Amino acid sequence: MLPLSDRFRVPPLQLLQKKLSGFALDGILFTDLSNIRYLCGFSGSDGVLVVGQTQAVLLVDGRYTTQAQTEGQGVVVSQYQSKLDGIEKAVAGMGLVRIGFEAAFVSVELYNDLQGRLKHCDLVALTEQLRLLRACKDEAEIAIMKEAAAIGSNAIAALARDIKPGWTERDAALHLEFLARRAGAQQVAFETIVASGENAALPHAKPTLRKFRPGDFVVIDFGVKVDGYCSDETCTFAFGELTEGQKNAYRAVRRAHDEAIAMVRAGISAVDVDTTARRVLGDKYHSYFVHGTGHGVGLDVHEPPRLAPNSSDVLESGMVITIEPGIYYPGLWGIRIEDTVVVKEKSCEIITKMNKDLLIIE
Amino acid sequence: MLPLSDRFRVPPLQLLQKKLSGFALDGILFTDLSNIRYLCGFSGSDGVLVVGQTQAVLLVDGRYTTQAQTEGQGVVVSQYQSKLDGIEKAVAGMGLVRIGFEAAFVSVELYNDLQGRLKHCDLVALTEQLRLLRACKDEAEIAIMKEAAAIGSNAIAALARDIKPGWTERDAALHLEFLARRAGAQQVAFETIVASGENAALPHAKPTLRKFRPGDFVVIDFGVKVDGYCSDETCTFAFGELTEGQKNAYRAVRRAHDEAIAMVRAGISAVDVDTTARRVLGDKYHSYFVHGTGHGVGLDVHEPPRLAPNSSDVLESGMVITIEPGIYYPGLWGIRIEDTVVVKEKSCEIITKMNKDLLIIE
Repeated sequence: MLPLSDRFRVPPLQLLQKKLSGFALDGILFTDLSNIRYLCGFSGSDGVLVVGQTQAVLLVDGRYTTQAQTEGQGVVVSQYQSKLDGIEKAVAGMGLVRIGFEAAFVSVELYNDLQGRLKHCDLVALTEQLRLLRACKDEAEIAIMKEAAAIGSNAIAALARDIKPGWTERDAALHLEFLARRAGAQQVAFETIVASGENAALPHAKPTLRKFRPGDFVVIDFGVKVDGYCSDETCTFAFGELTEGQKNAYRAVRRAHDEAIAMVRAGISAVDVDTTARRVLGDKYHSYFVHGTGHGVGLDVHEPPRLAPNSSDVLESGMVITIEPGIYYPGLWGIRIEDTVVVKEKSCEIITKMNKDLLIIE
Repeated sequence: MLPLSDRFRVPPLQLLQKKLSGFALDGILFTDLSNIRYLCGFSGSDGVLVVGQTQAVLLVDGRYTTQAQTEGQGVVVSQYQSKLDGIEKAVAGMGLVRIGFEAAFVSVELYNDLQGRLKHCDLVALTEQLRLLRACKDEAEIAIMKEAAAIGSNAIAALARDIKPGWTERDAALHLEFLARRAGAQQVAFETIVASGENAALPHAKPTLRKFRPGDFVVIDFGVKVDGYCSDETCTFAFGELTEGQKNAYRAVRRAHDEAIAMVRAGISAVDVDTTARRVLGDKYHSYFVHGTGHGVGLDVHEPPRLAPNSSDVLESGMVITIEPGIYYPGLWGIRIEDTVVVKEKSCEIITKMNKDLLIIE
């Protein structure tokens, strides 16, 4: 892994520290592990990061002390027996009074515990101030995300060559994951979706023992993690002969996907991209498109911004987002076509690599 | 998957509904996905379950409507455009006023949103009332967990036969996962740990490209999911000749593991089991045992009870817990030995199947 100091032109922790006084805060307490990884590089599964204006303390339990010392950058590592004790001590040691916290991630139970411990502090719930913290990616982050996208796309391409009628959804999912792991993916970014026939009408289906049959659409939604960053891509393959209705629906989803991507650029409202996808699907199909058009991707596979009817996000240069319209006919079949793109000033760059022409497997 | 009505002698949702008046509540709002799955069988990745004294409503977005209708038992399924709108409508429709919520899972942001929407309701933070909701497993749950444990153990046993010096940690992790998936595991229960040499001193190491070498301990911590339920087992193998110090340490961890398991039964305090493991490790080793002795396992790989120095849990019949002492010498090597056991009235039953004698791979 690149050290963070090489990854970012300005380390995110320093950028955040500069903003603290603007937020009228002495510090911020982070518990979300993706935020912690972003800010200081620590990739363990438990810990707390307390950021002050001039210093930052990474609190971990004994399982993670060595790892935190190796990975943590710009932080002092401190080991706790009890998390609340650790936080109390760090806050006192740093002399923090007005302390922000991630309202979207801190549970009511932890908040109540913190209030009991930090009696002389003001705890300030942060929502909008942190929502887009990780949304605009730096060049080095985008380079890693391209690597992840390439591994994911290559595995889907190899699956497309190997897959045969008679395979089950689980066979295909396992094949895909094995190929991607062999190619260097550390893990999958989310539970792989391979959904065929009527299962493809479930947008988030789990792979079953159903065998691929002529006339099936097979929706393959796959992503991997490289260095913590996720890829996300969906292809819909066909087995054998399709009906005219299926072919028309595929063309409609493809057009919605293409036209949505064509309008992605800095300054455009997320909701406009979503509206375009729905408009292109038209009266015949749009009520069967039962989810948003896309979402941000990064250290989390779903992160802000949201491209959906009720989103108020505006796209910015460096955001990495998905465009993924679909049509789902319950009990019959489903189609989804998804690419991940980097938002640029005047357009976007598609970083997932599978061609989205309809692929028919005989 | 077994229908829930066949899985439990009394469905957990009914048991909970009977307890509501004792809690002085009209209903409880669930957002934790494992709790939702436990109570009504829905296995999607987003949703809300509102439980009243005589009815329950499962709220999902359009991605999950068909799945919720298929999987949900004892519930009415309702689709929302906006989650808060859906909750508001369900609470009004059910006439709920005093409503409990999971304080450990509801974020401060969601809580504030709920307060804004449910102005005529009392929201009651539940902590201890729900902490052990899923802790005591029914017979059918234990049967599924035994199946998961067997798949995990068989994969480790096969790895032990196949593994060779020169393999990397990632090779071994991938082999293990592939074997388990081929045998029917739906996914891994957590990120597989294969940690060799000095990496084994990191209790939660990620697999790297380090190759196994003579003198290595290799810690393999592996679990799979079957029907949502997790398995969890750790073996420590040795490559080639060990030092006397390494052998003595392995024997110490093995004794701590065996003696801790020997005392597990209903009615015993979790902290006593933890204390025993530390006492058996003795002055020479106990300060290198940097985590708790064990934890509950079920739909989550880590769930209550906790077996740790500051735990106040008492073991009950039907709880499924891990016993996993270890010794970690930073920069040198590490050992962990873990089994999953079912707590019985007078003893416990070990459901993970690998023999824990030291296995030396030449």
